[in-house]
Amino acid sequence: MGHRRCHGVRRGRVRRRRAGADPAARDREPEAAVVTTSGLAPGYAQANLIAVPRDWAYDVLLFAQRNPKPCPLLDVTDAGATTTELKPDADLRTHIPRYRVWHDGELTHAPTDVTEYWRDDLVSFLIGCSFTFETALREAGVPLRHVDQGRNVAMYLTNRECRPAERMHGPLVVSMRMIPESLVDTAVRTSGLMPAVHGAPVHVGDPGELGIKDLESPDFGDPVEPEPGDVPVFWACGVTPQAALMASRPPFAITHAPGQMFITDVPDKAYLNQP
Amino acid sequence: MGHRRCHGVRRGRVRRRRAGADPAARDREPEAAVVTTSGLAPGYAQANLIAVPRDWAYDVLLFAQRNPKPCPLLDVTDAGATTTELKPDADLRTHIPRYRVWHDGELTHAPTDVTEYWRDDLVSFLIGCSFTFETALREAGVPLRHVDQGRNVAMYLTNRECRPAERMHGPLVVSMRMIPESLVDTAVRTSGLMPAVHGAPVHVGDPGELGIKDLESPDFGDPVEPEPGDVPVFWACGVTPQAALMASRPPFAITHAPGQMFITDVPDKAYLNQP
Repeated sequence: MGHRRCHGVRRGRVRRRRAGADPAARDREPEAAVVTTSGLAPGYAQANLIAVPRDWAYDVLLFAQRNPKPCPLLDVTDAGATTTELKPDADLRTHIPRYRVWHDGELTHAPTDVTEYWRDDLVSFLIGCSFTFETALREAGVPLRHVDQGRNVAMYLTNRECRPAERMHGPLVVSMRMIPESLVDTAVRTSGLMPAVHGAPVHVGDPGELGIKDLESPDFGDPVEPEPGDVPVFWACGVTPQAALMASRPPFAITHAPGQMFITDVPDKAYLNQP
Repeated sequence: MGHRRCHGVRRGRVRRRRAGADPAARDREPEAAVVTTSGLAPGYAQANLIAVPRDWAYDVLLFAQRNPKPCPLLDVTDAGATTTELKPDADLRTHIPRYRVWHDGELTHAPTDVTEYWRDDLVSFLIGCSFTFETALREAGVPLRHVDQGRNVAMYLTNRECRPAERMHGPLVVSMRMIPESLVDTAVRTSGLMPAVHGAPVHVGDPGELGIKDLESPDFGDPVEPEPGDVPVFWACGVTPQAALMASRPPFAITHAPGQMFITDVPDKAYLNQP
């Protein structure tokens, strides 16, 4: 399918992030690079990636099983595999627009190709992404502010701890969308039909209840401008394992860069619960 | 709640199994013991148990992740734990009416209490059970032949291989219910709303398509008498990990005896997908 090079490049106005929580911002090429895969390849599911050495695979798998809202597993590869059944013709090391390479819980590199970093003992976890229900939101009449503004979705660390698993622990990360108040119910219902890609929101309204101090300063991605009458709506996010990497400090890991996802060949409707 | 000793004993006519595939039949006390927990504690979810040494836990967890239809995980304990959040006041070693103890893939004991066999490195997997949607079937007007006949549900090995995971591999096991033809759609729809407890059937009709030669000779549980106009309907079954134990031969494992489940405190409706 060759999504990666075919689906074009977003050239929206990208507000430069303040120096801060997102160390990969320094690697971002502000105008020419893909800012986010949100809005690309509509109709196809997108996935988060976390690849860890086999020695840490049980910890990550159990963490995902115990925290299905942020970590709904779509596929887990055998150690060393460089493909996933979600898109068999794609190389896990090159298909994502931008990666993150982690050593001892520190983000060390943010390349567009991780072939040189790959190891034969890496187990890859593909985790559902809320971008997958954005087509359904749009079809239900819910505007997508971040897409319309040419920005990445805004993501935040919260004060909610995930259920730990062996050595893996850390806070819940959420993605936020500004939704017109009259359409919040529609957004809840529409996303709620797709639990494999995070399902219904975990919170609507006051960011303070999640411990988020300033919506203008997301921990990952870009701030998004609200329109009058918008309400912030928060979904569990597949960046949660990256927060757990920072807290749990495994010796090595590779992930996608937040908002720059693995685009699959699986139709988004495959993850729609048919009542 | 004390389900185990409170929920009474089924005394229906139990046809003795032919000598054959179910080696635990020799341990069964034909009249006095619990034949099955099907029909007991209506309104509460029931669960399959497989407990393996920590060294095999990744294999089992990945096997379950890759085979969610037969192995929907409801909880995974820490190594050595003797309780589950599904029923915090129950001891995993005594709450199930009958267990199976396995050495090198061979069934060696079928006791009612596994305290003496327990090990500090055992990780327990609680897997959804189709008994959980039987109340919903009954409420939808679908008769439960095995309950009415005082028998265990009939379970069969099939010719469908599960997706292997590390050292774990084996065939899909199914439970079978005889359903009046006019109610098959209702049974499909009703169970389909509960994917965490196996969801919709994997097959309706000809047993030969699953490689089942004789419905009268189930591999686990009891044969069930059809009524005129009944059609056999097959659901993925949480005994599948036991077939994988036989095929994969881990050094040690403890499971429930087929049909004799861990009765939880979780309402069955907690696993109902709300459309």
